[in-house]
Amino acid sequence: MGTKQVQAYGTESVANPLHQMTINRRAVKPHDVEMEILYCGICHSDLHQIKNDFGGTNFPIVPGHEIVGRVTAVGNHVTKFKVGDLSAVGCIIDSCGHCEYCNDGIEQFCDEGVTFSFNSPDKDLGGSTFGGFSKSYVCHEDYVLKMPAFEDLAAAAPLLCAGITVYSPLKHWQAGPGKKVGILGIGGLGHLAIKIAKAMGAEVTVFTTSPDKVADAKRLGADNAVLSSNPKEMAEYNRKLHFIIDTVSAKHDVNTYLNLLRHDGSVVLVGLPPEPLEIGAFNVVMGRRSFAGSNIGGIAETQEMLDFCFKHNITSESESSLSTM
Amino acid sequence: MGTKQVQAYGTESVANPLHQMTINRRAVKPHDVEMEILYCGICHSDLHQIKNDFGGTNFPIVPGHEIVGRVTAVGNHVTKFKVGDLSAVGCIIDSCGHCEYCNDGIEQFCDEGVTFSFNSPDKDLGGSTFGGFSKSYVCHEDYVLKMPAFEDLAAAAPLLCAGITVYSPLKHWQAGPGKKVGILGIGGLGHLAIKIAKAMGAEVTVFTTSPDKVADAKRLGADNAVLSSNPKEMAEYNRKLHFIIDTVSAKHDVNTYLNLLRHDGSVVLVGLPPEPLEIGAFNVVMGRRSFAGSNIGGIAETQEMLDFCFKHNITSESESSLSTM
Repeated sequence: MGTKQVQAYGTESVANPLHQMTINRRAVKPHDVEMEILYCGICHSDLHQIKNDFGGTNFPIVPGHEIVGRVTAVGNHVTKFKVGDLSAVGCIIDSCGHCEYCNDGIEQFCDEGVTFSFNSPDKDLGGSTFGGFSKSYVCHEDYVLKMPAFEDLAAAAPLLCAGITVYSPLKHWQAGPGKKVGILGIGGLGHLAIKIAKAMGAEVTVFTTSPDKVADAKRLGADNAVLSSNPKEMAEYNRKLHFIIDTVSAKHDVNTYLNLLRHDGSVVLVGLPPEPLEIGAFNVVMGRRSFAGSNIGGIAETQEMLDFCFKHNITSESESSLSTM
Repeated sequence: MGTKQVQAYGTESVANPLHQMTINRRAVKPHDVEMEILYCGICHSDLHQIKNDFGGTNFPIVPGHEIVGRVTAVGNHVTKFKVGDLSAVGCIIDSCGHCEYCNDGIEQFCDEGVTFSFNSPDKDLGGSTFGGFSKSYVCHEDYVLKMPAFEDLAAAAPLLCAGITVYSPLKHWQAGPGKKVGILGIGGLGHLAIKIAKAMGAEVTVFTTSPDKVADAKRLGADNAVLSSNPKEMAEYNRKLHFIIDTVSAKHDVNTYLNLLRHDGSVVLVGLPPEPLEIGAFNVVMGRRSFAGSNIGGIAETQEMLDFCFKHNITSESESSLSTM
């Protein structure tokens, strides 16, 4: 199989910073799409993998999984894309396609394991898949997304991971009119959760430990913003919320938030704290509440999310845009 | 208000064993039912309260909340019961009747707090409600259950708490044909969960730490019984179960069981371990799984459970009957 040499940023070990390197991309196969990469988000998962925080990093690594590009070549059998189209690749570039998970459109949980856009075994070239911190990407058309013509494509790139990570549980737990949704934390995930939950029609209450983020939360569209260190403010939400998206990636007290749920409510974890979280029995048993989790989303749902965000003019904030607020 | 003196078993302090005492029962009001108590179960919650394990015991205490009796008097306005009827009282004898919880038939989570059949503030006589370790009981007809004519009424008494505690989540999480249900632990709750889940039509797999309970589980009707200390047996159930009823009341590893769930599955805690349980983020995030809880059930559902158990000939095992198995 032919390959093409491509410039990228990666590293051979935890000890080395990212640096420029040359990687191989496979030649375009009949169902492949090749794209020039225009923008790529930087997600905390990229940092986790670079630093081998979860112990599963295969070096050398080229991170990047929030990839926005423009199609430069397509295989003979590709029908969904043509050269010049805006395109995108997110977290997943392959799955078995026939297990219950793939059949249910949640191929992120594929029984045989998905191929991620970086740091997964590369079935074509051997070694690991290399991500979007590079000049181009090649993958099967079924895993390439149609990128709507966002005005600011750079700001739309984080939707490919952060966006779908919050869109999927907001959809699954039915955020919408009449629903009171809590958002815990206002980082990369939380600030998109605010915008998407509002666009879905929910009443959004943000919980933050940072006094300066209370104002940010409201500017981003939250109906209410609560300083979680204030017990009196917190008590006002006791048993009031239908569900809470928990974006916190460090060890934290989930029980406080379980007690803000109505009956049958869920705290839905989308962050990945490295240490286990402690749950008191009474906090789930009373009110038939749940502590649940959610992880990214399937390809069809990711496309739906991109179209939804384009329609509602939702993109990620960047440091520079927040600093002007 | 007139009262009647009744013999009971109770205690004035953690230090004293239960002993015979005399308590007052209120005179029958227009909507009250008075019953002679025929049998009363002994539940771990009774022991917790006697020993003040959760710190909320009001002494003197008369425990007992799995009460089977025969009606001896009814108030003028009572329509559902007549003298001589079999009757029962479970955990709940009052709730506000107008909050969202009461309206949704889950008055066990009443916004204003329920009155339990023992150790709750007694709105009529002051002090605390006294439970079923006594000769008679008086309460509002809305909280009295029609007791089907079980052949062994003593063995049916534990259904009033243990039975509804497992019936309610089995119903809510939709145990039935085509569903693979796990049961964790085979004590008072677990053994009834096996019988009820089987009667609902589910495929039942029991997990136990005791080799001698593997055979018991199968005799009770379980399709499969797994020794949880055997990793090879456990691995066969990886991602296979729709949900698991977790009856364990001591600290234990929930993560192992979360990993046995299919996507969107739940481990549903019905035990009350005094220490918090640790949940690893990946174990809920992967597969969109939940760690949930459930607590007893509402009055209507308790009646439904009694009728279901009568129809399917389900009662509690006792030590003597188990020893002959």
